[in-house]
Order: sequence, then C-alpha cells, then structure tokens
Amino acid sequence: MSSIGPPDDENLETKEVDLRSMSSSSHGQAPQAHKVAIPPRQNLFKEFKYTVKETFFSDDPLRPFKDQTNSRKLILGIEAIFPILNWGRNYNLKKFRGDIISGLTIASLCIPQDIGYAKLAHLPAQNALYSSFVPPLIYAVMGSSRDIAIGPVAVVSLLLGTLLSNEISPDTHAEEYLRLAFTATFFAGITQATLGIFRLGFLIDFLSHAAIVGFMGGAAITISLQQLKGFLGIETKKFTTKTDIVSVLHSVFSTAHHGWNWQTIVIGASFLGFLLFAKYIGKKNKRFFWVPAIAPLISVILSTFFVFITRADKQGVQIVKKIEKGINPSSVKDIYFSGEYLGKGFKIGIVSGMIALTEASAIGRTFASMKDYQLDGNKEMVALGAMNIVGSMTSCYVATGSFSRSAVNYMAGCQTAVSNIVMSAIVFLTLEFITPLFKYTPNAILSAIIISAVVGLVDYEAAILIWKIDKIDFVACMGAFFGVVFASVEIGLLIAVSISFAKILLQVTRPRTAILGRIPRATVYRNIQQYPEASKVPGVLIVRVDSAIYFSNSNYVKERILRWLMDEEEQVKGDYHTKIQFLIVEMSPVTDIDTSGIQALEELHKSLEKKRVELVLANPGPAVTDKLYASKFANKIGEDNIFLTVADAVAYCSPKVVEDP
Amino acid sequence: MSSIGPPDDENLETKEVDLRSMSSSSHGQAPQAHKVAIPPRQNLFKEFKYTVKETFFSDDPLRPFKDQTNSRKLILGIEAIFPILNWGRNYNLKKFRGDIISGLTIASLCIPQDIGYAKLAHLPAQNALYSSFVPPLIYAVMGSSRDIAIGPVAVVSLLLGTLLSNEISPDTHAEEYLRLAFTATFFAGITQATLGIFRLGFLIDFLSHAAIVGFMGGAAITISLQQLKGFLGIETKKFTTKTDIVSVLHSVFSTAHHGWNWQTIVIGASFLGFLLFAKYIGKKNKRFFWVPAIAPLISVILSTFFVFITRADKQGVQIVKKIEKGINPSSVKDIYFSGEYLGKGFKIGIVSGMIALTEASAIGRTFASMKDYQLDGNKEMVALGAMNIVGSMTSCYVATGSFSRSAVNYMAGCQTAVSNIVMSAIVFLTLEFITPLFKYTPNAILSAIIISAVVGLVDYEAAILIWKIDKIDFVACMGAFFGVVFASVEIGLLIAVSISFAKILLQVTRPRTAILGRIPRATVYRNIQQYPEASKVPGVLIVRVDSAIYFSNSNYVKERILRWLMDEEEQVKGDYHTKIQFLIVEMSPVTDIDTSGIQALEELHKSLEKKRVELVLANPGPAVTDKLYASKFANKIGEDNIFLTVADAVAYCSPKVVEDP
Repeated sequence: MSSIGPPDDENLETKEVDLRSMSSSSHGQAPQAHKVAIPPRQNLFKEFKYTVKETFFSDDPLRPFKDQTNSRKLILGIEAIFPILNWGRNYNLKKFRGDIISGLTIASLCIPQDIGYAKLAHLPAQNALYSSFVPPLIYAVMGSSRDIAIGPVAVVSLLLGTLLSNEISPDTHAEEYLRLAFTATFFAGITQATLGIFRLGFLIDFLSHAAIVGFMGGAAITISLQQLKGFLGIETKKFTTKTDIVSVLHSVFSTAHHGWNWQTIVIGASFLGFLLFAKYIGKKNKRFFWVPAIAPLISVILSTFFVFITRADKQGVQIVKKIEKGINPSSVKDIYFSGEYLGKGFKIGIVSGMIALTEASAIGRTFASMKDYQLDGNKEMVALGAMNIVGSMTSCYVATGSFSRSAVNYMAGCQTAVSNIVMSAIVFLTLEFITPLFKYTPNAILSAIIISAVVGLVDYEAAILIWKIDKIDFVACMGAFFGVVFASVEIGLLIAVSISFAKILLQVTRPRTAILGRIPRATVYRNIQQYPEASKVPGVLIVRVDSAIYFSNSNYVKERILRWLMDEEEQVKGDYHTKIQFLIVEMSPVTDIDTSGIQALEELHKSLEKKRVELVLANPGPAVTDKLYASKFANKIGEDNIFLTVADAVAYCSPKVVEDP
Repeated sequence: MSSIGPPDDENLETKEVDLRSMSSSSHGQAPQAHKVAIPPRQNLFKEFKYTVKETFFSDDPLRPFKDQTNSRKLILGIEAIFPILNWGRNYNLKKFRGDIISGLTIASLCIPQDIGYAKLAHLPAQNALYSSFVPPLIYAVMGSSRDIAIGPVAVVSLLLGTLLSNEISPDTHAEEYLRLAFTATFFAGITQATLGIFRLGFLIDFLSHAAIVGFMGGAAITISLQQLKGFLGIETKKFTTKTDIVSVLHSVFSTAHHGWNWQTIVIGASFLGFLLFAKYIGKKNKRFFWVPAIAPLISVILSTFFVFITRADKQGVQIVKKIEKGINPSSVKDIYFSGEYLGKGFKIGIVSGMIALTEASAIGRTFASMKDYQLDGNKEMVALGAMNIVGSMTSCYVATGSFSRSAVNYMAGCQTAVSNIVMSAIVFLTLEFITPLFKYTPNAILSAIIISAVVGLVDYEAAILIWKIDKIDFVACMGAFFGVVFASVEIGLLIAVSISFAKILLQVTRPRTAILGRIPRATVYRNIQQYPEASKVPGVLIVRVDSAIYFSNSNYVKERILRWLMDEEEQVKGDYHTKIQFLIVEMSPVTDIDTSGIQALEELHKSLEKKRVELVLANPGPAVTDKLYASKFANKIGEDNIFLTVADAVAYCSPKVVEDP
C-alpha cells in the first residue's frame, strides 16, 4: 500500500506508473517497486515548444538542416522547394525508360478523360486539356510524389460544375462562368498553398476515411447518371440541371419516347462494353495493365473515324464539334479580384481546393507507402497550391491527382515525376496539332469513358469492410453516399464533414466508463459487463474512466460516476446489502487532466462527502498525479487515498467497510 | 506467451486485458491468466442505442418513469416540466421563513444593480426592473435550482449592449434599438429552449472553465472601466463608445480638465469606499453576509436623499432623472419577425443566449453540488429559455442567474425558488410605487454599485491555480482576458471559443507517444524520458500510443511511430549497435480504433515490411482486438504477434534478434 509521490512533469510525455512492479510485491516477493521518478518541473516554454512542434512540425521537416553550414542550408532550402534539383541529379536513362512509357500511357488515358471531365464542369474541352499541360509541369518541379498523375479529375470537376452553376448559368453567361471558374481555381490554389505554408495540412485529416469512401462512391454514381445524357443522346435543353438521382431518372424516362437516339445508344453501348472488357482484362492479369489504359484512346480513334465515315452526326449522334487549337492563353485578367464574384469564387475555391487536396493526399500517401518513401504532406500542399495558382492564370481549372491515372502510372513503371512531364508534352502536341481531329468524336464515347473511369470509385468492398469494423463509420459512409446520390454533392459533403465532426465531439464529450469487479481466484479487477463472473466488493464501488478528463467531458465524467453510484445504491437498497462506503476511481487510462477536470473531481469529492462515501483514486498517470498535487486536490482527499493499483486500493478500503453503518 | 483471442464486443464498454494476471505468471507462479471473455457480437442497433443514450440522455431523465402506470406517467411528465408542483407539496412555513429573508435580501441588492446594468445594455432602467419581475416568476415555476437568483446580469448586459449598438445607435434610434433588444431576447430564449429540448446542453461544455475565468475577469475590468464615465461625471457625448481599455482611458484623460465633476467624484468615491468596506466585513465574517447585501440599497437611499436636499444635480452631479412607473407593458408587437433586423436579432440572440446559459449553468451546478441535489442541465435550459421567451414579450431583456445575487441568496438561507417569487414581488411594488423616488439617485452611486458587484468576477486566485495546473489552460484564460480588455467582448469571446476548440483539436489530432525501456531488475517497461535508467532492448523498439486511434490522428500516429524508428536507426548507425528488427507497439491506452486507424496500421505494417522490421502488438484492448480480427489485420501480422504484455512480446522478440543481420 504505497501512495504516489508528486512527480513533476518534464517534457509532457505521459509517464505510466506500471502495475507490475506493485503486483509482484502483492505476490509476497521482495517489493521491487521503483519510485516514481521526479523530473524537473514542467515549464511553459518547453511545454509550448513541444506542443507547437508536434502540431505543426510533427514530421520534423528541418531535420536535414541540422548541423549544416549556411550555404549548405540555402541549397537544402531551395531543394526543399524544388525537389527536382535533388532527385534530378541522380536521374538516368533507365529511369527515363520507365517514365516515358508511363508518361505515354497516362497521356493516352488523360486526353479522352479530360474532354469528358470538362463537360462535368460545364467548361469548354480545351480548358481541361490546358489543365493537363501546365499544372503537371509545375508539379514535376515542386512536388515530391513519384507516382501521382496530375490533371483534372471527375469528382472535383463535378463539384466545381455544381458549385459554379449555382452562381452563374454556364449556358447563358459562358464568359462570366469561365471567369468564375478561374477565380475559384486561383483561390483553391491559395487555400492549398496557405494550408501547406502554415503547416495546417492536418486539417484535411478531419474528413474521415469512411466519409471519403461514401462521398466518392456517391459522386461516381452521380457522375455516371450525368453521362446518361450523352449516352442516350438526350439534348442538353431537355435534361435537368440537378444532379440527384430522382431528377435525373425523371429526365431520362420522360424523354424516352422522343429524346433518345438509337444510333448514339448503339455506339455508346458497344464501346462501353469494350472498355469494361478491357478493364476486366487488366484486372485479371496485371501484365495487361496497358489494355485498359489505351482502350479509351482506341475507342476515341475508332468511333471518331466511324462517325466521320458514316456522317452519323447527321442522324442525331451528338459530336464534340470544336476544341480550340493552341496552348493555354493567359487568364490573369479574367480572375475576379473585386466585385460580388470575388467572394463567391473564394468560397467555391476553398471547398474545391480542400476536396482536391484530400484526393491528392490520399493518392500520394498510398503510393509513397507502397514504394516506401516519405512524403511531406505540407510541402505537397504548397506544390499543389502553386500549380493551381499558376493554372488559374493560364486558363486551367482545378487540377489534382487522379486515382485512375496514378494507378496506371504506377503500374506502367513510372520512376519520377518526369512521367508527368512526358504526359504534359503529349498534351502540348495534342493541343497544337491534333484537336481539330476530335471534331467528329461522339459524345457517347466520352460518356462511356467517364463511366468506365469512375466505376472503380464505387468501392463496395471498402464499404463492407467498414461495416465489419466500425458501425458508426459505416453510418458516416452511407450518409455521405446517399447525401450525394439523393441530394447533391454539396449536401453529401456537408453530411460527410458533419458526421466526421460529430464523431470527434462524441469522442471528446462522452468517454466510456466501466464498473470493475474482482475476477475469482485473482487480484484482478475487470469490467463486470464483460466478465459476469467478476464479483463486486461489498461496500466498495470501482469505476474506471477511459479517457483524459478535459473541460469537454469533465461534467459528464463526474455525473456519470455519480449515476453509477446511484444505480448501485438502488440495487443495494433492494438487496439489503452493505451500503456503498468507498468509491474507487481507476485512472490508468486517464492520460491527462485539465483545470476543469480537477474542478469536476473536487465537485465529485464534495458530493461524495455529503453521501458519506470516501473517494479513492487508483493509478493516476504522472501527468495527472502532478496536477492533483499542484491543485492541492491530493491533499484534500488525502495522499493516502491514492494507490498504485486497484488491488491496493481495495485492500485499504475493504477492512474499513462497516456492515450496517 | 499467450496471444489474445478475438473477443466480440457486446455493449461498447471497453474491456481491459489486465496485466497482472500475466505478470504473476512471469514471476514463476502458477499462471492465473483468465481467457478474454467472448461476449456476443456487437450489433448496429445496440451500439447506436448506447451512443445516443450516452450522448443525449446521459443523465437518464426517464428513470422515474420506469414501471409506472400511464396516469402516473402523465403526472410525472407535468411535474417534470413544472417542478414547483412537486416540491410545492412539501412546502412549509419553516422553508418560507428562509425564502422570505433571502428574497428580501436579493431584492434590495437587485434593484440598484438592475438600474446600473440597464446602462451597460444602453437600455432604459425600467426594462432591467421588468426583467427582475417576470422572468423570476417563470423560473420559479419551471426551474429546478433552489439557489439561483434570476435577473439581468452585468456580463450579459455588457455583451448585449456591445452587440446591439454595433447594429443600431441607442442614442439616435432608441426605439429600433429597444425592439432589436427584444428580438435578441426572444431568440436567446429560443436558443436556450431548443438546446434543452433537443438535449444538446453539452454544447456549452465546449467553453472551457479557464476560458470562462479569463472572459469573466476581462468583462469585469471592461465593465468597471465603463463606470468611470458615471463615476467621474463625464458627459456621455464626450465618452467613447468603444469598450477597449486604450480608448476608454484616452477618453477619461482627455476630459480630465473640463469633463470631470468633483462633486460627483466625492459622492462616488465615498460610497464606493463604503460598499467595499461592507464587502470586506461580509467576507471577514460569514454571519454579516447581509451587510454587503443591503449596503447598495442604503447607499442609494442615502445618496438620493443627499442630492435631493442639496440639489447637487444643479452642480453637475448627474442623476437618474426618470424611471417609467408601472409594470411590464406587452412587447409582442415590438419583436422583429421579418426584415433585416430579424437576422441580426437572431445572431445576437444566439450569442447572448449561450453566454447567459453558461453563467446560469455554472451557478446551478455550483450550488447543486454544495447542497447535494441533482440538476438536469437540459431541463434547466428549457426553463431559462421559456423565461426569456416570455420575457421578450413583456419588455424584458435577457435574464439569467446572477453570480453575486445567487451567492447572497444562498447565504441568506433560501430554501426554494420561492425566494425569487418574493424578490419579484418586491420589484413589482417598486415598479408600481417607488420608481419616481429614484429620480435624484446620482449615477455615480450606480457606478459604484456596479464596480463593487463585478470586482469579484476578477478571480485572480483561479487564474493562479490554472497557471499552476495547466499552462495551456492559462494561455486560454489570458487570451480571453486580454481579448476582452484590449479589443472587445466579442473578440474576447471569439478567442476563448477558438482556444477551447484548438485544445480539443490538439487532443484528437496529436496524441502522445513514448519510447519504453526496461527498468533494471524488473520486467517492467516504462517511458525512457522519465526513467533514464531504463534500458532499451537491443534490436527491439517499444513505442506506446496514448490515445484511441481515430481518423483524426491515425496518420499522425503512423508517421510518429515511423519517425521514432528513424531516430532510433540513426542512433544505432552511429553507435554500431544491433539494427532494429522488431517494433513493439504497446496499445494499453488505445481504447478504440476505427477504419482509418486500421488502415494506418496496415500502412505501418507495409512500411515496416519494406524495412524488414517485424510489427508486434502488446495488450490491445478488447474493442481494438475485435476490430483487428474483423479487419483481418490480426491475420496479416500473424495472431502470434499479438501479446498480452510488453514483457511477453519482448520475451518473444529478443531471442530472435540477430546481432549482424
């Protein structure tokens, strides 16, 4: 029975008073109990420095700068901003071979995808191609992921299209719409760069994995539904502008008699079949990864040729018609830096920038862990931000890492970001020379390509796994999914963020508590809900609190403990048992406590005194012990009432219990 | 060396695999290890029911309704809404004696305070008196605190005055200002009632104790500074409308030559001295609690009489001049239910309603724990909300529980809310008959009364305690304090809320981790930072994670563990030690894990495999164990790699370590 001395906390690392040293003594051997070490008192500056470091510099970005000369530091600094200067030195022909193959592969995939994605964003096709030219170049210079493939992506295009067309109609005010798109892209870049520079990258962790799975799946369904328009050859005018499943299906079926075009359907369906078959082959045998990668380009070439020969466009098969020739014109002057659209562009930019970040960072992390290299999330954000800022000035819209193309890039054996440069070069050539050839490309092919691209985003296996692992996560996942499908992308996103936050609030406001009982033939105390054979000690109630006690949960913890006591007293009354005279709070899992927590303990102590119940603490961690002493609460309840283990505490209480008080 | 079987989680209570059963066996005795109990699988409905219950009904409000007949349930339901029907039945003369004395005492205190507080809110004095008439009656019927004294309070008056005058000038548009005040009061009531009805009362816990101490102290300073105007007899026109200390002191000193009135200063200073002396006596000897309680009324009577006799108002001593006679007129039609002021009133109402709630709930809890009765926080909010809704329709502004008057109420021996009814009756008589007599009351007296009332809110002892206990809490406290004093109440409030939230974010995003080492002559593993004598096991790195692993921290935890490994490997390189071949993650403090957490573990596992380091888990809690199996992660790392204790894990790893791999 030894009480804990007041240790002082040096460096905020939580220290644990281990149970075993004591329990060994309770087995009758020579006590090996080590005294709780007493490091120097914590001080504000150290505590602060530690907190700031772990919050903003948890990845220790300055590590390589340690012990270097100033000129070396400068070089390292420039290399940190432009990693190409670092890996470029070791670049060789063998790596280039991998990069050129993968670069060509993703280029063949990105060109048809881009033209399709532009439609999701209600933007001209060339703007999507522009976005596959400039941003990948910037990223290649500043980014550090070796596998990510940069360009427009489906989900962000859909989101941007929805948000922008809430503000301006893309049909009647095409120019303003385009300008607002550049404005949003600019602020998306600013948002990303700002988060990176101020090392606030961890904020995107607040969108939980489960919510992202649901959101992406819902977005994929919504995107596919949108493609029904091109796939069935329905005229844009006759199609709803809403994205929810009910409106879209209503549009589709109400145009069934006069709006559908059978030639379009035949072309679309046969090529969709081809694309899905190619995907199946690629999945079946990893060696044929290139089959699904070039299938879209082949489809485009074949179908374009077919339409050109048959002039099917005269039969009502809708075609691309026109893509502007030439590379990115400047759009600096198009960005709204004043007026009402400044604010709107700003808001849309923040939302789409964050979603783009979420996607890019998920991709970056996945491949970095597969190839075992470290990514600095915050530095990545600066690179992505810079690329979108430059993009917004060169007629691009929000670009980010694409799931499907990055996977192809990886499988094609990319070595460095040079594959993005290769892709960018191909897009350049396309813009300069080939765009007129897309004139006769049927829209139905683009729709088929998009459907086959996004179908992989419906990750039902992940959803099943989430269901198996964590039911509340599953609710978040389904909430986001159905929100996107039945309402809109924004609503789905809002649901995803809200449920994620609600889960955090739950975590910090409602920690778990449990009543412990003694396991037969042992001095071990465990949750009596799990171990029904565990027996309560007469006159003693043992409660374990399973979280740090902070202001957000201190009242709950206090009241929950009192409620356990009340429940217990009612039972005792019914059973003519011994009245509860001791309350042991097992504090092992309580890693920290703050002033509100101490206050709650004091209130608990007062309430218990009124009820003539003695408060006993078992195994408070050192950070907690320190604060118990600093606040004089340890003196208030008596230092002798703090024990190293529950067993010790019971050994102290049990003999003092009076049968009929 | 026993691995943990896959237990299924029944009721979300976290179960712990106790260390001692194992450690005893490691001391060579017969192993007493109990198998981890396997309760039935968790199901979604149960899990949900439990979560909802703990979140919204953690205080079990329906407990008395259990096993009752329907008619009895109806009666209990009505009693739950109007607790007076319950306690009223046991009301007797003895209780009434306590209530009438305390009621008279707080009435004598509240009348002069009210007139002063009205000035803080830039409202006519009678509106504050109205607010001490109707709301206390409603509260007496619906509330369940026995000690709280209801009426206008200093901080809410200041806040309301600041927020309202940001929208409308109280001087030039007095009528609209008053109407907006009623609108804000209405929505403050709606906010409070809504939070209570939907059982969201826990939201106010998000303002931490430390932040409240700082905010209240800052508000008290600001309020006192505002009183310099009345205290020095400076004309309103010459005084700044800002509340920050710099502007106020500049106003004060720039009017020093011509704006100050020495007669006013003499009256004010002498009575302030009297009031503070009375406070001192009351503090010195609890028996004289009534001295500071009636001192304000005596001051008002004496000074009013003095001014009336000497006609000091003709010497420039400012007086109250006029308080409307008669009780509350209806103000239903004055509330803005449309137009631009609807939204503004709504916003102001939410903010002031929340602050009023915070104050009332702090008071309610304090006295409930002193007299040991339970308060249902959510029911209290409904009562406070109803009282402010009715108040807004009867010309009152936001009323809540007053710190100073509640303390006096308690010390004067109040027994029930009847003391509020008594106070209300006195205010009624005052409004009907006495208000004209206040005509000659000098403003300086009101200022002196307010200063002496709020001086107690500067709780420097609490601030010192906070400094001692928790440095980050202290920063929150000071941030709120200086924000209020140097900027404005809103800024201070914003700082307080932001720091509180930042602390929560920190808690959920950056859990602590520690490297463990073996304590000499024991099989005990502890933080090597705290115990420098603890020795690392060659080739094995032991990391402890001190929090549940959720989506908000899963990436951080993974990367932090990898960084520990990197640090270690660098050290090993320098010292020609054995390369790290095993990483043991001690998971005792990890109470739960979600899908993102599992994913992070999988990524960690992959990264470690690349580095040829074997991942070993020690003592995962049952909720965690369950999910490790559900996700098949346990199979991935091998079930044999999960141990009950760190000692067991080391016993497994250590013999396998190769000296020069």
